[in-house]
Amino acid sequence: MINQFEIRLPAFGRGIHLITHLIEQNLPQLPDKGMVNIFVLHTSAGLTINENADPSVRYDLEKFFDFIAPENQSWYRHTLEGADDMPAHIKSVLTGPSLTIPVTNGRMNMGTWQGIYFCEFRNHGGRRRLLVTIYG
Amino acid sequence: MINQFEIRLPAFGRGIHLITHLIEQNLPQLPDKGMVNIFVLHTSAGLTINENADPSVRYDLEKFFDFIAPENQSWYRHTLEGADDMPAHIKSVLTGPSLTIPVTNGRMNMGTWQGIYFCEFRNHGGRRRLLVTIYG
Amino acid sequence: MINQFEIRLPAFGRGIHLITHLIEQNLPQLPDKGMVNIFVLHTSAGLTINENADPSVRYDLEKFFDFIAPENQSWYRHTLEGADDMPAHIKSVLTGPSLTIPVTNGRMNMGTWQGIYFCEFRNHGGRRRLLVTIYG
Repeated sequence: MINQFEIRLPAFGRGIHLITHLIEQNLPQLPDKGMVNIFVLHTSAGLTINENADPSVRYDLEKFFDFIAPENQSWYRHTLEGADDMPAHIKSVLTGPSLTIPVTNGRMNMGTWQGIYFCEFRNHGGRRRLLVTIYG
Repeated sequence: MINQFEIRLPAFGRGIHLITHLIEQNLPQLPDKGMVNIFVLHTSAGLTINENADPSVRYDLEKFFDFIAPENQSWYRHTLEGADDMPAHIKSVLTGPSLTIPVTNGRMNMGTWQGIYFCEFRNHGGRRRLLVTIYG
Repeated sequence: MINQFEIRLPAFGRGIHLITHLIEQNLPQLPDKGMVNIFVLHTSAGLTINENADPSVRYDLEKFFDFIAPENQSWYRHTLEGADDMPAHIKSVLTGPSLTIPVTNGRMNMGTWQGIYFCEFRNHGGRRRLLVTIYG
């Protein structure tokens, strides 16, 4: 059984956002055992999994990305779409375009402290689309 | 249904290469709904997804990888295979060894601006092999 | 067919560890064609694939992560769980929480030089849990 649908996120500000509850709200009945793949349909945003408790982890993670991929590097050639654009492409490569999460007993099976992060790397990315594919 | 086959890439120069068309040319009839997994069988090359339009994104991305993982760091121990080898291992860890791309209506379903990047991190990597697994 | 089970790793020291044999020992009969997904149930450890031969690659990779995500950055806010904790979250985002490895003829099908790395980013991470999902 394969089930597939799109989730349209609200327009998030630049930063790292915990969206586990938002994904769960949109999921249909999940299989007993299987996988959920969540795929970002954009090139300047990303998905990752990390600590769902202390929000300072998300704050520091965003700072880290700014630290290793700063704006206005003299050697950037891709500058026409704004100073935040090329760093956003780089950061989205580092986080990756998708997550594959195991399903057990009809629920996404993550560790106690794991949550799904949506990473908005543009200043004004607007509403982003995720494609969810469930199999099992 | 699971379908699996290998793609042998042409010998690319060091750099980031857009290979969406090359993957599509090699795909058999895809299922209505499903997933395509593309797996690099090497440890000094990687796969990622990013902007398919302006080539300067690929240029800047390559520069970025050289910037954070430069050659000839004094603390590298793995130096026998050439100055480009250890940085290539690091960069391939950062991009990751595989992509899982959703399939909808018999086509890989990516965003308008998304393309598949093959990242050749060695100076002379030769012809590389990808293992493609389709399920759906 | 979907098969799912947990692997409890031994308590590894901080560092990058080759665990291909450990995964293989725990795998049941694999399908002829399919995929194995290995998912880390933690937010300060990661999984990746890289060279299985020279251990200096794993040594340099760990050094690299310390180099780009050092401890005690003045701008870290998430500091209560120890100096190694926030860097560990960052590094686990960079490696990613899971691997999806193709299966061919009842075996994980990786390249000759590819091995599975378990990345323990904490000083004393204890015994970690992996969730393995096989489909095919």
